[in-house]
Amino acid sequence: MTVFKSKILDISTRSRLILLNAQRAEQLGITTHDRARLMKDELSVPAIVNTSETFVAPDEVGVFLDTAKELGIAEGDMVTVNLLPPPTSVQYIRKKMRGEKLAKEEIDYIIKDAVDRALSDIEVTAFITAEQYHGMDMDEVEALTRAMVNHGTKMDFERPVFDKHSLGGIPGNKVTLLIVPIVAAAGLLIPKTSSRAITSPSGTADTMSTLAPVDFSASELKKIVTRTNGAIIWGGSLNLAPADDIFIGVEYPLQIDPEPQMLASIMAKKLAVGTDYLVLDLPVGREAKVETPEQARSISNKIIELGERLGMKVKCGLTYGGQPVGYSVGPALEAREALLALEGRGPSSLVEKSTALAGLLFELAGKAARGRGQDMAKEILASGKALVKMREIIEAQGGNPNVRPDDLPVGEHKAEILAPFDGYITRVSNRAISAIARAAGAPMEKGAGVVFYGKEGHKMQKEEKMLEIHAERESRLEEAYQLALKLKPMTLEGMLLQEIPEL
Amino acid sequence: MTVFKSKILDISTRSRLILLNAQRAEQLGITTHDRARLMKDELSVPAIVNTSETFVAPDEVGVFLDTAKELGIAEGDMVTVNLLPPPTSVQYIRKKMRGEKLAKEEIDYIIKDAVDRALSDIEVTAFITAEQYHGMDMDEVEALTRAMVNHGTKMDFERPVFDKHSLGGIPGNKVTLLIVPIVAAAGLLIPKTSSRAITSPSGTADTMSTLAPVDFSASELKKIVTRTNGAIIWGGSLNLAPADDIFIGVEYPLQIDPEPQMLASIMAKKLAVGTDYLVLDLPVGREAKVETPEQARSISNKIIELGERLGMKVKCGLTYGGQPVGYSVGPALEAREALLALEGRGPSSLVEKSTALAGLLFELAGKAARGRGQDMAKEILASGKALVKMREIIEAQGGNPNVRPDDLPVGEHKAEILAPFDGYITRVSNRAISAIARAAGAPMEKGAGVVFYGKEGHKMQKEEKMLEIHAERESRLEEAYQLALKLKPMTLEGMLLQEIPEL
Repeated sequence: MTVFKSKILDISTRSRLILLNAQRAEQLGITTHDRARLMKDELSVPAIVNTSETFVAPDEVGVFLDTAKELGIAEGDMVTVNLLPPPTSVQYIRKKMRGEKLAKEEIDYIIKDAVDRALSDIEVTAFITAEQYHGMDMDEVEALTRAMVNHGTKMDFERPVFDKHSLGGIPGNKVTLLIVPIVAAAGLLIPKTSSRAITSPSGTADTMSTLAPVDFSASELKKIVTRTNGAIIWGGSLNLAPADDIFIGVEYPLQIDPEPQMLASIMAKKLAVGTDYLVLDLPVGREAKVETPEQARSISNKIIELGERLGMKVKCGLTYGGQPVGYSVGPALEAREALLALEGRGPSSLVEKSTALAGLLFELAGKAARGRGQDMAKEILASGKALVKMREIIEAQGGNPNVRPDDLPVGEHKAEILAPFDGYITRVSNRAISAIARAAGAPMEKGAGVVFYGKEGHKMQKEEKMLEIHAERESRLEEAYQLALKLKPMTLEGMLLQEIPEL
Repeated sequence: MTVFKSKILDISTRSRLILLNAQRAEQLGITTHDRARLMKDELSVPAIVNTSETFVAPDEVGVFLDTAKELGIAEGDMVTVNLLPPPTSVQYIRKKMRGEKLAKEEIDYIIKDAVDRALSDIEVTAFITAEQYHGMDMDEVEALTRAMVNHGTKMDFERPVFDKHSLGGIPGNKVTLLIVPIVAAAGLLIPKTSSRAITSPSGTADTMSTLAPVDFSASELKKIVTRTNGAIIWGGSLNLAPADDIFIGVEYPLQIDPEPQMLASIMAKKLAVGTDYLVLDLPVGREAKVETPEQARSISNKIIELGERLGMKVKCGLTYGGQPVGYSVGPALEAREALLALEGRGPSSLVEKSTALAGLLFELAGKAARGRGQDMAKEILASGKALVKMREIIEAQGGNPNVRPDDLPVGEHKAEILAPFDGYITRVSNRAISAIARAAGAPMEKGAGVVFYGKEGHKMQKEEKMLEIHAERESRLEEAYQLALKLKPMTLEGMLLQEIPEL
């Protein structure tokens, strides 16, 4: 146990770190990445040691701002530092690395330490890659899900909670903006939390944010749904299953998504808000997250079993995911299309998919007989009740309830891609459309995105507009346009796809 | 491309980081762990973005001291920051994660980026664990070895270079302190670079450091061996295969040592100093790194094949590794035992092992006929020439050439473990001895360690001293003694090993 003077540093780090003088650390037999307990009065936290040659003096310890706040440490305060062995959870991570099954207590330790930021990036990566290589059985996935819920905020709405989740990967998937008001209009509680885009041009939270604020605390969410039965908010401020963000921080740069983690991630966020009935939308198709119906059925069976273990009734709906949903991609463009659909002016593919999924929730709830849910959803949509409900939700979240589709701030800079000859559209590439919309500025620039004037099977005339790119800035438009010329996001039958050698 | 004002931070980070204001980064569409290129005038480096709420202002970029020095950036200098895609090498890491074979150019990219600190801990961990799970074939191991050498300092002694390596894991293995002077006394060049202990009570560099300084640059090493033919130095300042340290930084906390990485690590350090002839000591036994002769033969065959591919002649010697080497463990205690052996007063097991390995080098060199090398080594040792050579080496490295075994500063605080009854020693545990010596303060406290008064097969009388613990501080002695009572590092035939339930 050694006493140090605190020096506060405001740098955000994923693991909880403290900074010791390099020479002093060597004298104490402490090396970078050793563990230590930082103590101030009765409060203490474990931390990972980093060292600096000159930034901290031999008698100083660098404490990062969030840790300083937590322990009530001010600049210059005396604190103590104790060398610790690595946390027990590191042993369990190594056990999974050897391919052994983990007990639920072992998984709980890992999640607790991850949330406490007591694990280094190295250890979190080792855990996620071990899941990727060795998999987990359903006992482990259940334990993982429960641990992720337990080490985070849990909500209780004191009524049955309905929810919907899309497996993602498909640009333009604005169905949540239809499903939530349809379901809420039927009197069911649907407090939908969504994510912002990580790799896509618009997450549901990004799209909704063009209509109303989406950043709320747990108590604010409760107030909103008490008034309206429904909400569409960003889940980031609720601290639901916070381990998930830590794991995503590793999965994203490595572009991996181990199945046990994917299952636990979906179900933990639902369990944390007390979901009783869940419909899972599984888009299947080329360049979707799930490419074959077999894979989709396998995931469905696992999600349903996991739901049973967690006391949640789940229905999975396989949907066509081989091209974008609807005719627009990008936050404001998608919100506009969703509003148009609520007004009865939406594309039939969007309406069909949204009402089909809402209908499954009605059937789960016993509100509609098996096979009759979609009709009920379509009636609510056609009656205008879903539109009224959406305006209530927008108002409850602090947006303008009278917003019109044309009010939405779509990027002014536009470029068009025309059909080079007469022909049928054979393909609209999810991946290329996402890349072009992101190049145009989505999701950060809300008005950026892509509008299609045809989808697979449509007949185009030569020189007819196939695609329109919107951007808020001329420079992004040019970048997106050049990318569109290169990626050829829409294919006409007979189109030359590549020349070899390329010019 | 955005211009920022520099703010210099002296914190050592394993990856090369820059720090942006969190709000500004969000506006620019940059998130934590994105890549950016930091530029000052014509110089630039890639870096990984971290963000801070308040430590840097929106118009500032935090630059860590080593990067600032490299690019010649002073506090307040204007620099530019460009968003970059992840380095190509991340694609190759993902390729290995999928279990595919990597081309040599792909491996070279990974090593280059690791050494440039352009990879995050997440990516380095993903690479090492992928090696662990998927393995590598000999083409990949060769490419890995060459890449590790090429991205680091290479030495050329303009004469045939001889070298020796022990696979490690055995406490008390001070054979290098005998082999180097024996081989150098025969006129062969043996510039031995060693490591400090990571998990053991004393690395060869720690042991040698009680006799002479061990921290030298490449040019200083050349000067030393020009005078003496031999040296025993710490390899850490030479920048030989620097990727190795980066990988060890991941392997150590996870306690893994993937075979391809182990092979490349050994051979890269040898190739970098231009080794032509190598003897590899493979201790085999319980609690050694290699536990079975089959495993040792498999590693030997791979090392020999790798040597052939690299133009290096290799002989492997399997040695008994089921208990510590000699009768002492800990830096000063081991140096004392090595000096005694050079004076002709060492234990025969230590002399046998050292001369056997030195003899293999003589046979490789053509200095001795097959089967006659050990005799030659024993003659050199018995003649006193090895002792004279060792004193030359100590002097050339700046130590006291007249040092006597009793001059070495052995810890004053001592505790003994006595034999509880008459009996034969059936086991001396490598792992327990290491743990006790480390608890006593080794390797940081040079005088700390353990001395045995018997090894496997020795007959002990009741109350006879079996083991002595040395420490520089009373508190460490007590800790080590309590650990020794718990771990029972030496076993007598018939000894009760555990009581259940334990008290």
